[in-house]
Amino acid sequence: MTIRPAAEADHTPIIAIVAPVLAAGETYAIDTNLDEAAVVAYWFMPAHEVFVAELDNEIVGTYYLQHNQRGGGAHVANCGYMTAPNARGKGIAKAMCLHSLERARERGFRAIQFNHVVSTNTGAVALWQKLGFRIVGTLPKAFKHPVHGYVDSYVMFQSLVD
Amino acid sequence: MTIRPAAEADHTPIIAIVAPVLAAGETYAIDTNLDEAAVVAYWFMPAHEVFVAELDNEIVGTYYLQHNQRGGGAHVANCGYMTAPNARGKGIAKAMCLHSLERARERGFRAIQFNHVVSTNTGAVALWQKLGFRIVGTLPKAFKHPVHGYVDSYVMFQSLVD
Repeated sequence: MTIRPAAEADHTPIIAIVAPVLAAGETYAIDTNLDEAAVVAYWFMPAHEVFVAELDNEIVGTYYLQHNQRGGGAHVANCGYMTAPNARGKGIAKAMCLHSLERARERGFRAIQFNHVVSTNTGAVALWQKLGFRIVGTLPKAFKHPVHGYVDSYVMFQSLVD
Repeated sequence: MTIRPAAEADHTPIIAIVAPVLAAGETYAIDTNLDEAAVVAYWFMPAHEVFVAELDNEIVGTYYLQHNQRGGGAHVANCGYMTAPNARGKGIAKAMCLHSLERARERGFRAIQFNHVVSTNTGAVALWQKLGFRIVGTLPKAFKHPVHGYVDSYVMFQSLVD
């Protein structure tokens, strides 16, 4: 697997991964009715540094890294990861997360924070915990899941310094 | 005291309140070097519904109300409040917060979340707690305070439904 910065030529395969996840509305607190241009505008917003994961010359995952806040909060990064449905179970999310930890350190960030990990996304929660993230907050019924209704979300955090 | 929606004519007094608070960099995780146009662009960003508090025909406070997230998170509001330094101790922040709770209910929000309450801002933390907010998460050293260095921030939350 290769992880590299995304290029404009990657927009179409990235849309193919990101758009269905947003439309499903089960894991990201983002509008579910975005058209392709809006999906690109969201995933490639100016603050986002976007990467893709390639396997056998096919893009099977993508993630972004950004400042979570500005000013006094600018030393904490934030990321979002997505894996192509047909490429699950191959360690792609894990590889992207490890890559992002390294990239965040390289850019001088002192921590990574996830603001809104939906509690029903148990696979993701377990994976982030395995990779060193802690649940530092629970947002009660902060996410309206299309199947499960109002469910908790977690704030997850990992320090990158001693 | 009157609390009413902000108008364009209020930009100058609002800048006079907001700009010094952002420049001080002690309480908001926002760039500290914003010029007046950028301050207005931030405080009046399209998603923000902005209000002002008036006392004796003078604007002594301002706050915004917005969606904290989109999609499945769009039922949770987020607010930011600022009081003019020369008007502190008059219950203006409290009045604005109570107003925002009512306004959020009126708009159908089911909760209000503060994402980043700097722990050294003890007056604000105590006031929000008194008004029904709970600390639901602690972000370790997530804020670089210009005097105190890296300090914790809190995620605070109040449900508006039973």
